[in-house]
Amino acid sequence: MKLVPLGDKVVLKQLEAEETTKSGIVLPGQAQEKPQQAEVVAVGPGGVIDGKEVTMQVKVGDKVIYQKYAGTNVKLDAEEFVIVKQNDIVAIVEE
Amino acid sequence: MKLVPLGDKVVLKQLEAEETTKSGIVLPGQAQEKPQQAEVVAVGPGGVIDGKEVTMQVKVGDKVIYQKYAGTNVKLDAEEFVIVKQNDIVAIVEE
Amino acid sequence: MKLVPLGDKVVLKQLEAEETTKSGIVLPGQAQEKPQQAEVVAVGPGGVIDGKEVTMQVKVGDKVIYQKYAGTNVKLDAEEFVIVKQNDIVAIVEE
Amino acid sequence: MKLVPLGDKVVLKQLEAEETTKSGIVLPGQAQEKPQQAEVVAVGPGGVIDGKEVTMQVKVGDKVIYQKYAGTNVKLDAEEFVIVKQNDIVAIVEE
Amino acid sequence: MKLVPLGDKVVLKQLEAEETTKSGIVLPGQAQEKPQQAEVVAVGPGGVIDGKEVTMQVKVGDKVIYQKYAGTNVKLDAEEFVIVKQNDIVAIVEE
Amino acid sequence: MKLVPLGDKVVLKQLEAEETTKSGIVLPGQAQEKPQQAEVVAVGPGGVIDGKEVTMQVKVGDKVIYQKYAGTNVKLDAEEFVIVKQNDIVAIVEE
Amino acid sequence: MKLVPLGDKVVLKQLEAEETTKSGIVLPGQAQEKPQQAEVVAVGPGGVIDGKEVTMQVKVGDKVIYQKYAGTNVKLDAEEFVIVKQNDIVAIVEE
Repeated sequence: MKLVPLGDKVVLKQLEAEETTKSGIVLPGQAQEKPQQAEVVAVGPGGVIDGKEVTMQVKVGDKVIYQKYAGTNVKLDAEEFVIVKQNDIVAIVEE
Repeated sequence: MKLVPLGDKVVLKQLEAEETTKSGIVLPGQAQEKPQQAEVVAVGPGGVIDGKEVTMQVKVGDKVIYQKYAGTNVKLDAEEFVIVKQNDIVAIVEE
Repeated sequence: MKLVPLGDKVVLKQLEAEETTKSGIVLPGQAQEKPQQAEVVAVGPGGVIDGKEVTMQVKVGDKVIYQKYAGTNVKLDAEEFVIVKQNDIVAIVEE
Repeated sequence: MKLVPLGDKVVLKQLEAEETTKSGIVLPGQAQEKPQQAEVVAVGPGGVIDGKEVTMQVKVGDKVIYQKYAGTNVKLDAEEFVIVKQNDIVAIVEE
Repeated sequence: MKLVPLGDKVVLKQLEAEETTKSGIVLPGQAQEKPQQAEVVAVGPGGVIDGKEVTMQVKVGDKVIYQKYAGTNVKLDAEEFVIVKQNDIVAIVEE
Repeated sequence: MKLVPLGDKVVLKQLEAEETTKSGIVLPGQAQEKPQQAEVVAVGPGGVIDGKEVTMQVKVGDKVIYQKYAGTNVKLDAEEFVIVKQNDIVAIVEE
Repeated sequence: MKLVPLGDKVVLKQLEAEETTKSGIVLPGQAQEKPQQAEVVAVGPGGVIDGKEVTMQVKVGDKVIYQKYAGTNVKLDAEEFVIVKQNDIVAIVEE
């Protein structure tokens, strides 16, 4: 089974957040916007979304930073994914 | 009796969520956006919705992931359905 | 006396909800979006609503599912009606 | 003294609500959208409101149903009026 | 010193509200939208506001009804004024 | 060091509010919209902001009334400034 | 590793806020909009964002004031960054 995102949706697989587990400190009031590092697993076709043309700018394999707040968590074949709108992805992490 | 959705509405029939019943864990604050796997039962004609052209991208029989938050639950002839806007469907599950 | 709806408004008469009275269970948090089955009693002319062209897609006699949340309840000559925007009607029930 | 409404505003005079005073039951959570029967006393000129062309569809003497929530109550020469946007009027009551 | 309003802003000077001081009854939940009778002291030039053409329809000396909720209170040379957007003025009071 | 505002932003320096310090009364519920008298210190270039053409209408040296609610407070070289959108300035004070 | 911002996003590195650590006073209700001085580390390409053309007006090395409220905090290789929309940057600090 695989997930085929619609419109401007992007399927992500969260990466191990080594840095954040070290401290374990959660500042109150910021939990909703906790940044997330993830790998792009599937990318929607883009096109006209809500009457506005959206061009997809991420591709499968990109490591990205996204805002967790708007994501939809999905469990499929024992794997967990997050589906976000491309607009919730704020940056690509290049190496 | 059958449900004929208007505009960008899609009628869904929820699938058995075997994976989620195993754990039964509900994380606080995420209940509103609990993802849902469902089968498409009927698809609206699309067209101009709220002044914006909407093209329908799902079809009857598709297995989809949707955001429960915006759905309308309907009970008809002892069967339960959920009617959502296509925009609340985030991905198609392909096998 | 009769109700003549303006713009994209639709006058509905709620049908007996036999199914829902049997169980009488109301899930907390879902009361606001309790789905409703009703018969269309009068349909507004449509036209330009809030700067957007709206074409009416329901007709008098249609049995419809609507979202109760946005409706306006009216009592006229001892009969009760609900007036909704067409956009709050999610599906037509065909037999 | 008289009230001359601006733009898409309509001045209403509330009618005696005989039906509602009989029962006196107010369902919790619905008070904000309590429907109102009223007579149109003055109608604004319409025109471009918030960048959108609005054509006035009610006239002085019409009996209308409106949503109380958005109205502005005015007391002038010991008489009470309600000023609403035409969009808050959902139907005309014809006899 | 005098106040020169920008854009669609209107400077008002509140009139004595004899009627309202007699009863002194404030209905709970309506305080935010308490209607106000005032005299127009200065009128902005109008023009393109937020991308929309606004034509000013009130003039200095007009007695108007406005919604207090959106106003900005200003004290200048021991006099008190309220500055509102023209859209917050719902009617002119003619004699 | 100096502040160069972007887009429709305006840098203000608050004036001594002699009138308000005399009474010292703060009405509950109005604190968020406390009006402010200030001098314009720097003006952004205007241009297309959020897809809408904005023309700057205030200039350096203008004394203005603004709504505190939307401002950003900045401390630079021991001086305090407030940066607001031009839309949050409601009037110019002329002498 | 480096962060490549998408669309109208800007990567910032916060500067030492000497002034604010001296007093340490936080006024209640203003914490969400605490102004921030930071250096621009990377700038997105701009382009059509949400159907609106956005031209980037800051460049790498600029010292800027931004509103913390909308930022996304990222920790990468033991360094901390904040990613904001250009619209959340209110001014450039020139020396």
